Amino acid sequence: MAGITLDRILAVQAAYIRCIDTGALEGWPGFFTDDCLYKVTTAENHKQGFEAGIIYADSKGMLTDRILALRQANIYEKQTYRHILGLPTVLSNGGGEAKTETPFLVVRIMHDGQSDVFATGVYLDTLRASDDELKFASRLVVCDSSRIDTLMAIPL
Amino acid sequence: MAGITLDRILAVQAAYIRCIDTGALEGWPGFFTDDCLYKVTTAENHKQGFEAGIIYADSKGMLTDRILALRQANIYEKQTYRHILGLPTVLSNGGGEAKTETPFLVVRIMHDGQSDVFATGVYLDTLRASDDELKFASRLVVCDSSRIDTLMAIPL
Amino acid sequence: MAGITLDRILAVQAAYIRCIDTGALEGWPGFFTDDCLYKVTTAENHKQGFEAGIIYADSKGMLTDRILALRQANIYEKQTYRHILGLPTVLSNGGGEAKTETPFLVVRIMHDGQSDVFATGVYLDTLRASDDELKFASRLVVCDSSRIDTLMAIPL
Repeated sequence: MAGITLDRILAVQAAYIRCIDTGALEGWPGFFTDDCLYKVTTAENHKQGFEAGIIYADSKGMLTDRILALRQANIYEKQTYRHILGLPTVLSNGGGEAKTETPFLVVRIMHDGQSDVFATGVYLDTLRASDDELKFASRLVVCDSSRIDTLMAIPL
Repeated sequence: MAGITLDRILAVQAAYIRCIDTGALEGWPGFFTDDCLYKVTTAENHKQGFEAGIIYADSKGMLTDRILALRQANIYEKQTYRHILGLPTVLSNGGGEAKTETPFLVVRIMHDGQSDVFATGVYLDTLRASDDELKFASRLVVCDSSRIDTLMAIPL
Repeated sequence: MAGITLDRILAVQAAYIRCIDTGALEGWPGFFTDDCLYKVTTAENHKQGFEAGIIYADSKGMLTDRILALRQANIYEKQTYRHILGLPTVLSNGGGEAKTETPFLVVRIMHDGQSDVFATGVYLDTLRASDDELKFASRLVVCDSSRIDTLMAIPL
């Protein structure tokens, strides 16, 4: 089975952050497989091999719940975010599955217009192809900074 | 008619910001079709459906005029800019035309070397292919921040 | 001889910064040809045609020495870095060699978690293909800011 094309990998990476940055959060869980793993952790913890993340979900249902909770909290959006993705490295690719690493940068734009670097890090992904779809079987978000806002409103 | 290849889309996006960041502004209008639409607006205004932008041009001639005016103003360049593009999403592609969305980040470098996030946002583009060329039939620059410097010296 | 594919160009660019950002610096010289040229300079100096760079190496051996010295200095890492690459422009491509320009952004993450824009600029590269490998025959790192820390711990 041929590897997943780079075009498709770039497309799903771009579509994922577009979903978040346009605020269409209900579409976010749809980027994952049903039995997905989604974790947010820090570079420090990741380096030391700590399994527990700051945010942890091991099914698409948990991701859906997360968005529901977020919407009910009805947080007044004082800021918006902009994700910028760097170029991905494809670590392995075959059998309908690709492992990739993609650096990211998130800029936070405050209500008064002030913009600053909110977060940087790398996405460690396992992408799975099925039929016409390419989904995240696993996304580990490794944030460079140890100072992560655990009340973070948006997914990363 | 086959869609425009991703390679070509990436190439024209990269060439556009290279033109600006190298200061070769006279080449900037050449990225657009003759009957182009170029607008700069804010996410806030775009969301509310406001048609008017902060900057508006509906022909290549207007873009050329803009650069001429800029050069005549002969602004002492106290700062430079660096555009970083994220990965584009191709929303539609066929019939020699592609609609794409590309996140961007602009860093401003002051004369004393201090660098900060100047602007972020997304390019909403209609690209049109003709012969060997791929041009912007329409570029809507949606800036995340509502605080845009209307005296902005450079194109976005 | 056909040009180097964009996929390969993107891959080597991504792999290079991944090597640095994961701290696997011993692998860094391996991205270059034996008779490589590696220079770091400023946009100001580059514009004025100054040949001398802030950092200069004209062989892979010099790059290896640089990493050895860095490791022996045993600097306590108070900060980490994250490179984000923009989209490359391919200026020429043929005969097993490609010239490309790739904008970059480096974010510095301090020990207390504070993140800021450390450097921006553009990589002016000559990539050379041989067998299965694609290496940097020449990498000129042009930093936008004139304020470059000459004690810079990491390669750019």
